[in-house]
Amino acid sequence: MTDVYNFCAGPAMLPAQVMKKAQKELLNWDGLGTSVMEVSHRSSEFKKLAKQADQDLRELMSIPDNYHVLFMHGGGRAQFAAVVNNFLGSNGKALYLTSGQWSQAAAEEAIRLVGPKGVDTIDVTKNEVEPVVKSISIPDFNNMNDEYRYLHFCPNETVDGIEIFDDISSPWPIVADMSSNILSRQIDVSRYAVIYAGAQKNIGPSGLSIVIIRNDMLKLPKLPQASIFNYQMQVESGSMYNTPPTFAWYLAAEVFKWLKQNGGVAQIEENNYKKAELLYDCIDNSNLYVNDVAIENRSWMNVTFKLTKGTLETEFIEQAKNKGLVALKGHRLVGGMRASIYNAMPVKGVQALTKFMVEFEESNTNYSN
Amino acid sequence: MTDVYNFCAGPAMLPAQVMKKAQKELLNWDGLGTSVMEVSHRSSEFKKLAKQADQDLRELMSIPDNYHVLFMHGGGRAQFAAVVNNFLGSNGKALYLTSGQWSQAAAEEAIRLVGPKGVDTIDVTKNEVEPVVKSISIPDFNNMNDEYRYLHFCPNETVDGIEIFDDISSPWPIVADMSSNILSRQIDVSRYAVIYAGAQKNIGPSGLSIVIIRNDMLKLPKLPQASIFNYQMQVESGSMYNTPPTFAWYLAAEVFKWLKQNGGVAQIEENNYKKAELLYDCIDNSNLYVNDVAIENRSWMNVTFKLTKGTLETEFIEQAKNKGLVALKGHRLVGGMRASIYNAMPVKGVQALTKFMVEFEESNTNYSN
Repeated sequence: MTDVYNFCAGPAMLPAQVMKKAQKELLNWDGLGTSVMEVSHRSSEFKKLAKQADQDLRELMSIPDNYHVLFMHGGGRAQFAAVVNNFLGSNGKALYLTSGQWSQAAAEEAIRLVGPKGVDTIDVTKNEVEPVVKSISIPDFNNMNDEYRYLHFCPNETVDGIEIFDDISSPWPIVADMSSNILSRQIDVSRYAVIYAGAQKNIGPSGLSIVIIRNDMLKLPKLPQASIFNYQMQVESGSMYNTPPTFAWYLAAEVFKWLKQNGGVAQIEENNYKKAELLYDCIDNSNLYVNDVAIENRSWMNVTFKLTKGTLETEFIEQAKNKGLVALKGHRLVGGMRASIYNAMPVKGVQALTKFMVEFEESNTNYSN
Repeated sequence: MTDVYNFCAGPAMLPAQVMKKAQKELLNWDGLGTSVMEVSHRSSEFKKLAKQADQDLRELMSIPDNYHVLFMHGGGRAQFAAVVNNFLGSNGKALYLTSGQWSQAAAEEAIRLVGPKGVDTIDVTKNEVEPVVKSISIPDFNNMNDEYRYLHFCPNETVDGIEIFDDISSPWPIVADMSSNILSRQIDVSRYAVIYAGAQKNIGPSGLSIVIIRNDMLKLPKLPQASIFNYQMQVESGSMYNTPPTFAWYLAAEVFKWLKQNGGVAQIEENNYKKAELLYDCIDNSNLYVNDVAIENRSWMNVTFKLTKGTLETEFIEQAKNKGLVALKGHRLVGGMRASIYNAMPVKGVQALTKFMVEFEESNTNYSN
């Protein structure tokens, strides 16, 4: 069959090499004669896997020694609540920057948990009306006197196709939801107090979230919550306070190995830049496709675009699907198209998409002439 | 290689037929050219899977129409907290029956969340000292005047090898943690207000929990908690308030199909009875193996036993492993041996184990003579 390139925003495609290995050893992992998902998380074999995954992620992201790495249940939304419950006990207050759907959802969850008194929000989007351009403008926080337990932001908005590349500087600990851009480019972990990510974009299948947390954050006062999301308890038990999602953890470990074998984050950053450039160039050089995000805030991971002839969108999605280019429909809240091009998407997948986009535009221009 | 029979208490073995199918279609599910774990949970294909899984579980367990079925993140421990947070708002109080490690842990989590004032516990174990026999004695609740939002109990204790077969009758809604015996034998769902289960014993891989909840329970006052564990919100969104653990959900759906193809719960109940009988007979007919649970409370799922010559235990585990009989070591808190013989364990797996046990006893009796 034709190669299928899957542009789903999440659960997203995983590296082909990892999936082939997973298939090969699905019934007999590590010579045990059983699947990795049928093995005790407390077995020496699984503990070895867990240790390796921790080491590999630390190496890939240059995580300093005063940070812990947790492998937990749930995805980004589980962490929306966990962040609040782990850091906002005893009348704490947090600042949430909103830049799109996901940061907004995180702020809403915080308000649900501690009420509006515990949460300040700043909308950091700037919308020019004519022509419509969405951009981000980060205020200078260093002159603010407010006391916040943390500042929360989401550097990549999957629905809106907006990415914040600025290194935010703040007098408060910074908590970043990197669900959709973790491991996609080099970052300085030491600038963050907490980084969390749902796995289903750049790490593995859904049902797993990763938390990278600086030691001192464990001491903040907590609210009552499910113990499985208590960061201190999970640190003490090596992420095994309860039975973890072992198969997802295994796949994450394989994705880390794959990244290391392929030049690490520096190399994937180059690929990601190239893929995004290819796609945005294709859009900018066309009369049919249009993207409304300011160049400096265009996401490398989720490329959103609309067709100037809106009536062609269904046809576009249909024809793309017939060529093996699937899941290009934009999020139900915003419409249009979205090509999610996470780490696992090869350059040739994006080349196949841009080739199709050019041909589709040509055939439809000819048709209307 | 030799057939491997995996007696792990959880994550436990899955049906061989399901695992083979999962392997075959791991890279190309439903003709999509991608893995099921790379497909959007909101795609028509995945929604179809979700609907089928719901229907199949309803059919297998004869779930009445006034119950909802939820597929959620986490395992049993996630639900320990969710039960409290969904039902114990505004000064509610609950009664927890304790019969072993897991029911005790559930009660402890409830106390962590609402304090000791919100939780009463009754120890329903009865320990005869000479000879040591653990049994269960359920009080008559119908004469009690206390007002509880719910009564919580755990009908099968995986660590202790204790199962409660009685149909408990109570003036309060009954919440049952069936993590380790759901689908193992026929039960009358209408006797319960809520049944929950971590998947990793009789349903699928770890990272998924299933909740069967009666309509009226959704109206009880809630405590603040992560929205992903809010039963009302998950009912309204068809368990897709957030990205669910899709691969685990898919495997659960396949396990349900497998059960249906193999005679449903009535047939698996017969197999399970036969397996448990084989193993307990082997223990009772030996001088080397001993089980300390009263016959009427011996678990069909987790058969615990000790060796009267304790020094032989390491050797027993080692020799068993060499014969492909793996993960027989008892829980770290209680020691000894444990053979977990969930639905996926075939009768011939238990036959292989009892054959080995007889041979091991013979060779060690001869040796000591």
